[in-house]
Amino acid sequence: MRILVLNGPNLNLLGRREPDTYGSATLTDLERQLRERFPAHTIEFRQSNVEGELIDRLHEANGAADGVIFNPGGYTHSSIALRDAVAAIDAPVVEVHISNTAARESFRHVSLIAPVCAGQITGFGLDGYRLAVLALEARLNRADGA
Amino acid sequence: MRILVLNGPNLNLLGRREPDTYGSATLTDLERQLRERFPAHTIEFRQSNVEGELIDRLHEANGAADGVIFNPGGYTHSSIALRDAVAAIDAPVVEVHISNTAARESFRHVSLIAPVCAGQITGFGLDGYRLAVLALEARLNRADGA
Amino acid sequence: MRILVLNGPNLNLLGRREPDTYGSATLTDLERQLRERFPAHTIEFRQSNVEGELIDRLHEANGAADGVIFNPGGYTHSSIALRDAVAAIDAPVVEVHISNTAARESFRHVSLIAPVCAGQITGFGLDGYRLAVLALEARLNRADGA
Amino acid sequence: MRILVLNGPNLNLLGRREPDTYGSATLTDLERQLRERFPAHTIEFRQSNVEGELIDRLHEANGAADGVIFNPGGYTHSSIALRDAVAAIDAPVVEVHISNTAARESFRHVSLIAPVCAGQITGFGLDGYRLAVLALEARLNRADGA
Amino acid sequence: MRILVLNGPNLNLLGRREPDTYGSATLTDLERQLRERFPAHTIEFRQSNVEGELIDRLHEANGAADGVIFNPGGYTHSSIALRDAVAAIDAPVVEVHISNTAARESFRHVSLIAPVCAGQITGFGLDGYRLAVLALEARLNRADGA
Amino acid sequence: MRILVLNGPNLNLLGRREPDTYGSATLTDLERQLRERFPAHTIEFRQSNVEGELIDRLHEANGAADGVIFNPGGYTHSSIALRDAVAAIDAPVVEVHISNTAARESFRHVSLIAPVCAGQITGFGLDGYRLAVLALEARLNRADGA
Amino acid sequence: MRILVLNGPNLNLLGRREPDTYGSATLTDLERQLRERFPAHTIEFRQSNVEGELIDRLHEANGAADGVIFNPGGYTHSSIALRDAVAAIDAPVVEVHISNTAARESFRHVSLIAPVCAGQITGFGLDGYRLAVLALEARLNRADGA
Amino acid sequence: MRILVLNGPNLNLLGRREPDTYGSATLTDLERQLRERFPAHTIEFRQSNVEGELIDRLHEANGAADGVIFNPGGYTHSSIALRDAVAAIDAPVVEVHISNTAARESFRHVSLIAPVCAGQITGFGLDGYRLAVLALEARLNRADGA
Amino acid sequence: MRILVLNGPNLNLLGRREPDTYGSATLTDLERQLRERFPAHTIEFRQSNVEGELIDRLHEANGAADGVIFNPGGYTHSSIALRDAVAAIDAPVVEVHISNTAARESFRHVSLIAPVCAGQITGFGLDGYRLAVLALEARLNRADGA
Amino acid sequence: MRILVLNGPNLNLLGRREPDTYGSATLTDLERQLRERFPAHTIEFRQSNVEGELIDRLHEANGAADGVIFNPGGYTHSSIALRDAVAAIDAPVVEVHISNTAARESFRHVSLIAPVCAGQITGFGLDGYRLAVLALEARLNRADGA
Amino acid sequence: MRILVLNGPNLNLLGRREPDTYGSATLTDLERQLRERFPAHTIEFRQSNVEGELIDRLHEANGAADGVIFNPGGYTHSSIALRDAVAAIDAPVVEVHISNTAARESFRHVSLIAPVCAGQITGFGLDGYRLAVLALEARLNRADGA
Amino acid sequence: MRILVLNGPNLNLLGRREPDTYGSATLTDLERQLRERFPAHTIEFRQSNVEGELIDRLHEANGAADGVIFNPGGYTHSSIALRDAVAAIDAPVVEVHISNTAARESFRHVSLIAPVCAGQITGFGLDGYRLAVLALEARLNRADGA
Repeated sequence: MRILVLNGPNLNLLGRREPDTYGSATLTDLERQLRERFPAHTIEFRQSNVEGELIDRLHEANGAADGVIFNPGGYTHSSIALRDAVAAIDAPVVEVHISNTAARESFRHVSLIAPVCAGQITGFGLDGYRLAVLALEARLNRADGA
Repeated sequence: MRILVLNGPNLNLLGRREPDTYGSATLTDLERQLRERFPAHTIEFRQSNVEGELIDRLHEANGAADGVIFNPGGYTHSSIALRDAVAAIDAPVVEVHISNTAARESFRHVSLIAPVCAGQITGFGLDGYRLAVLALEARLNRADGA
Repeated sequence: MRILVLNGPNLNLLGRREPDTYGSATLTDLERQLRERFPAHTIEFRQSNVEGELIDRLHEANGAADGVIFNPGGYTHSSIALRDAVAAIDAPVVEVHISNTAARESFRHVSLIAPVCAGQITGFGLDGYRLAVLALEARLNRADGA
Repeated sequence: MRILVLNGPNLNLLGRREPDTYGSATLTDLERQLRERFPAHTIEFRQSNVEGELIDRLHEANGAADGVIFNPGGYTHSSIALRDAVAAIDAPVVEVHISNTAARESFRHVSLIAPVCAGQITGFGLDGYRLAVLALEARLNRADGA
Repeated sequence: MRILVLNGPNLNLLGRREPDTYGSATLTDLERQLRERFPAHTIEFRQSNVEGELIDRLHEANGAADGVIFNPGGYTHSSIALRDAVAAIDAPVVEVHISNTAARESFRHVSLIAPVCAGQITGFGLDGYRLAVLALEARLNRADGA
Repeated sequence: MRILVLNGPNLNLLGRREPDTYGSATLTDLERQLRERFPAHTIEFRQSNVEGELIDRLHEANGAADGVIFNPGGYTHSSIALRDAVAAIDAPVVEVHISNTAARESFRHVSLIAPVCAGQITGFGLDGYRLAVLALEARLNRADGA
Repeated sequence: MRILVLNGPNLNLLGRREPDTYGSATLTDLERQLRERFPAHTIEFRQSNVEGELIDRLHEANGAADGVIFNPGGYTHSSIALRDAVAAIDAPVVEVHISNTAARESFRHVSLIAPVCAGQITGFGLDGYRLAVLALEARLNRADGA
Repeated sequence: MRILVLNGPNLNLLGRREPDTYGSATLTDLERQLRERFPAHTIEFRQSNVEGELIDRLHEANGAADGVIFNPGGYTHSSIALRDAVAAIDAPVVEVHISNTAARESFRHVSLIAPVCAGQITGFGLDGYRLAVLALEARLNRADGA
Repeated sequence: MRILVLNGPNLNLLGRREPDTYGSATLTDLERQLRERFPAHTIEFRQSNVEGELIDRLHEANGAADGVIFNPGGYTHSSIALRDAVAAIDAPVVEVHISNTAARESFRHVSLIAPVCAGQITGFGLDGYRLAVLALEARLNRADGA
Repeated sequence: MRILVLNGPNLNLLGRREPDTYGSATLTDLERQLRERFPAHTIEFRQSNVEGELIDRLHEANGAADGVIFNPGGYTHSSIALRDAVAAIDAPVVEVHISNTAARESFRHVSLIAPVCAGQITGFGLDGYRLAVLALEARLNRADGA
Repeated sequence: MRILVLNGPNLNLLGRREPDTYGSATLTDLERQLRERFPAHTIEFRQSNVEGELIDRLHEANGAADGVIFNPGGYTHSSIALRDAVAAIDAPVVEVHISNTAARESFRHVSLIAPVCAGQITGFGLDGYRLAVLALEARLNRADGA
Repeated sequence: MRILVLNGPNLNLLGRREPDTYGSATLTDLERQLRERFPAHTIEFRQSNVEGELIDRLHEANGAADGVIFNPGGYTHSSIALRDAVAAIDAPVVEVHISNTAARESFRHVSLIAPVCAGQITGFGLDGYRLAVLALEARLNRADGA
């Protein structure tokens, strides 16, 4: 299975920013952990702070990835363009948030991306990415078996 | 690990109600699948259509369960009393929804329960319960190791 | 025709509570009147103040009743769980209100149940239940003839 | 009993417009059905697309009709002037809608007319007009007997 | 001075409708009173329940009247078309309401017409029309003297 | 007739502040004009920028004045305390605004004072005070004649 | 191609009202220009200030016109009845506004008619009507070729 | 005096749940304290997490209790059915909250129950129940003396 | 115990204004009653209609009073400055309202003062002041014993 | 005439994404069609998914283009920065949308760009770009002739 | 340069109230610091808790001061009367807030005063007053040089 | 002191765009002025129209700058991602706006960035940047001295 793990704005600071909230593991740690845990999958990791580049990455994933794991960061709640990009591609997209966004400021309570995703996993720290791979596996197996 | 899987209103109809949306597996199927998949855990399954009985079940889980997997169904969006019950107990609670609630009516977009849960898993069908057990495992292992 | 007449919270007080608004007839009077007026139908009468028990009654009506006449009382405007129960069953549900809810407090102006009902009859006192039986008759005859 | 059946904007298209939603019966069919079903009543049928003409019809009904059955169509949700006209006359007015307006666009969920009507009957197709006549009969009998 | 006194929907019922609120004087009484009180002015009285006819009357007043006294009735709060008509003509328009609309339902608290009028006189019963003539006199005298 | 003309915050600047909007006449001019125009009445003029002093003035007018003409200035839209003071006294209160508040910022569109006043006169410049005296005269004559 | 050009309230004043905003051309000029520019089409021009008459005109266009160009004026933002009329007919309707309504008062920013039209052309003055004819031509050619 | 002390959802956890907020006294402690402090009164204590059972308890209190002290817990802000039950009984109901709900989440700021209660006592911990008994005493004495 | 009883706008009218709502006792009566009932306490009574003077009184109470009983009247719902004054002083403040504000106009439903008070007592007439003294006694005893 | 045709996010997928909605023509097809149809004009085509690059393109068009045709895609409804860029340049900007945005999700109903554009053309598919060129031609001819 | 430094409600407590938030310097300290730092300017310091007195001070500053530095405290967010006073005077007014109001309760996020001020300086503690003097200097120098 | 002066979208047009509002000085002028005025500081100037590049610049400033002066332009009111970036870095950020945003369109009244900044300086033209440097100096001196 080919998976794109796409991280949005400020996630490049992971491990250095507010470690109480986000933990001390970095994106590189995440990459290593996922590769070790899922050696059978081809996993590509991309991060960008630029909304339009995230759109580009989603477009490129069309046909090139079997599933996408997407943490849109602060763009989650305001970007119709990212929503349109997710809706435009065929690969299922799982939305992941490290922190429990429902327990934070009210402007983080509604996701514009969520309605066009396959599902959401929120609040489990970096472990959410692992769960998202498992969710994609189950979904794609189910689709294969159909 | 002792886990309470608590399902709220109308989930007793699972497998018989709108199978296109909810699939054909029943709560009994779910119970069997989880027991088979996680033989090391003690999993209790409860369902009730009565809000106050769900509160009772959460109270009883305090001390008796290491984690709770909770699908509050239609009470998700209106029940402050359930939120208070989740907040009042020590065991971590994972909120699960079978369908992608963000893609349905607007009154299903905000969860009153979510801010006091450990995290949410939404949109992956019955597979969400399995992911929730995995999330609880990881969380409790981390807590043990701390 | 098998009909379930289901009354929600506080309707057990009918005839004793605010008779200027609700009249002096009781639920027992209503039951007697409907049975006399429609001897050919099998009519079951249930009342509960517990939201979850109303859900249970709706579930039981599935397959056992050809139509449901439902006055959800104060749950009309807040219960997504009852709405889900109405949507989950096959029997057509007619929503009845004794008083003209549109002329009362603003929180009584929108019904969460209405969108998934067959129709609503509001403001005609206990006579609304008789009209609801007639509406169900017409609807079921039409379906039979189709 | 003298009854005015007053239909508002676009209802002249009945039977020709969106037959899946509104059925294939026309206003003429409705007129014939009601006359046959209620030979003892004098029933006048009026339709207009002009808001002010509907107001005129309501004014004329004052004293000339014992009850009014009114489908205000699209004016239901925006016309304070029609509401004032209904409130200004003595004859009881029953609001009828052919489709279940609660299940349509949100701007159709609140009726400005409803608070000053005797009651509402919604969602039963053309059968709603028959039920409205029955509701008026019961109401006027009750008033007579008082 | 040539004045158009324009009354909107339901004001033809004046004197017959809710006399406790609106008094027992009719539009004809009002006409007689104003003519007697202001013999030097040419006063035209028009009433219509049709929004578009009120627009027509306002158009005709352009050039033909030095001032307009306008009670838009229930159209006050919803008619952008009437507002546009008032804004389109040169003659100053004084908005009059018989009752104190601020003390009634909330949907009567904001007037769409008011921002394009010269001023408003509200709550003084039929006496408001006399005050409006006086207000127009003062305004036109001031303009003449400028 | 004993009349209190009560002016609220910033109206002491009348004639010096934004003369394009408010004209060049001062409160002293207004006082002189009203005394000349209505020699038979005893008119007291008070102005204060302090909300609580305006409340005191309204209290004192109770029993001492037959009517009050009140321009609450910027307190119009926020002062529940002034509204309570107006409601607490027996003398009728006419609310006057010099400019057309409906044509200004949206926070000036709703008056908290208006619902407990006898009526409002808005947008006619200082002439509004003269019209208010006339309105009080008519109202008190009517009451006397009753 | 048979086209109905339908203009709503106040558009009869075109050329005489606020020429800075609306230009000096009249409806008659518009009619002449369109006939000269599109001699092959049969173009009917109708204007009314009465909402219900506009509904009548739309009904009549059904079957009689291949396309409708509709400027609903001030009814654009409040008329559900006109929306229903547009939705009820088969001919495609193009909504035209002379001025850029998005740059005017906030109550002009949302059109109730737009969702049931083929498209909108806004802000190009009278030239918008010419563009609308071209849009209808393209649309109907495409449909013919299909 | 016969008093019903009725506690709603999660209050059975009192003394065990968030003692910093709610103190360490339990419902049993409260019961003992009130009985000792008011030996002359017959005080019944009931608690339920089920909304409908609270309604049942209120119904039973009708005629059987001279006053009710009611802490509706999380149902305070959402239950129209409980409000209707309070409004339906004759005994005066005093609403009590242990914590200062105004200082907590915004969804706890408005009580649906309050408008139909005799009064509210909020923020004084368990002492609020004692104050509520005193308030009922004063009210009933006043009524007796009337 | 030194207590400041501080009353806000229009409460000087107590006993004279709307006696049906507020009773016939005056502030002087209240003062006498509280002194008689609580001879051991030093109670100071202040009333002002001026918001800023109420702030001054609260500032003076800092250090000079052990507790404050405050009825902010109409300023309750709009005064951030009074809220800041209450928050700025150390003495606990109990908010009292004579009438049941929750049962009145919607703008009286939320108190800006409440979140920074110790608690609220609402709807028990003048008896609320006595209950407030008792509440302060209990609170201060508890603090002393801590 | 020098024209910039600027397309925003996801429009690079044109022809490949949801062809039922957007048709099968690509941006390249559009470019070819417009060049063929308007050989006399110099038309530049730019597309970017990056909001800031669209701003750069608009800045560059200042002085270099006589008119801009801009489809801001998903940025239409959220980008104040793009609005500021459009407002900052002298060339007239025509906003084009391929689909009828008014008939889609409510967050697509209001355009932040529209108030500072010359006009909008919405819902005519790729044909909207041709109409936009014609609109610019007419506008610039008019300006030249002035 | 003559400068009025005007402080609103509760700022007399500066240095004694919540020193963690507001620091330990008092208004007297502020006065001394500003006089030492700007010996060439004539600086007047006024503070009042009374809204109307702040209005009086602003009126007096008209002509008597070249600039005003104004911290309206809790009146910032509710006082239209203060806004009108600021708008009515010629001297430029700089709004200063000691704390970062945007990071506090939501009712502190919008200032009614700001739109009619020259500018705002927020969040820099007492240093904000010094910056405000510098801002006034630059503004007045620029005006002089113009 | 090392300072980053970061300017957002459209600020590259400074001096060329709407000079009445923004003045004729360019970003280059601003750079020169600040360097001359503060020769002791190391000031870096960056501008970008791309939201993600502004995030990158803020990240780079972490550790490399002692303070940031940030004018987020049109992103001020919509960018959660920029807010997160400001919150993620240690250097204090001063938000600067050239114009008085509170006096412009309502969507410019609330800043998403402000709550996580040290403070805001708004409305003083380019002079705001100089004041921001002074504010940073004072803040950092204070921190050094602590």
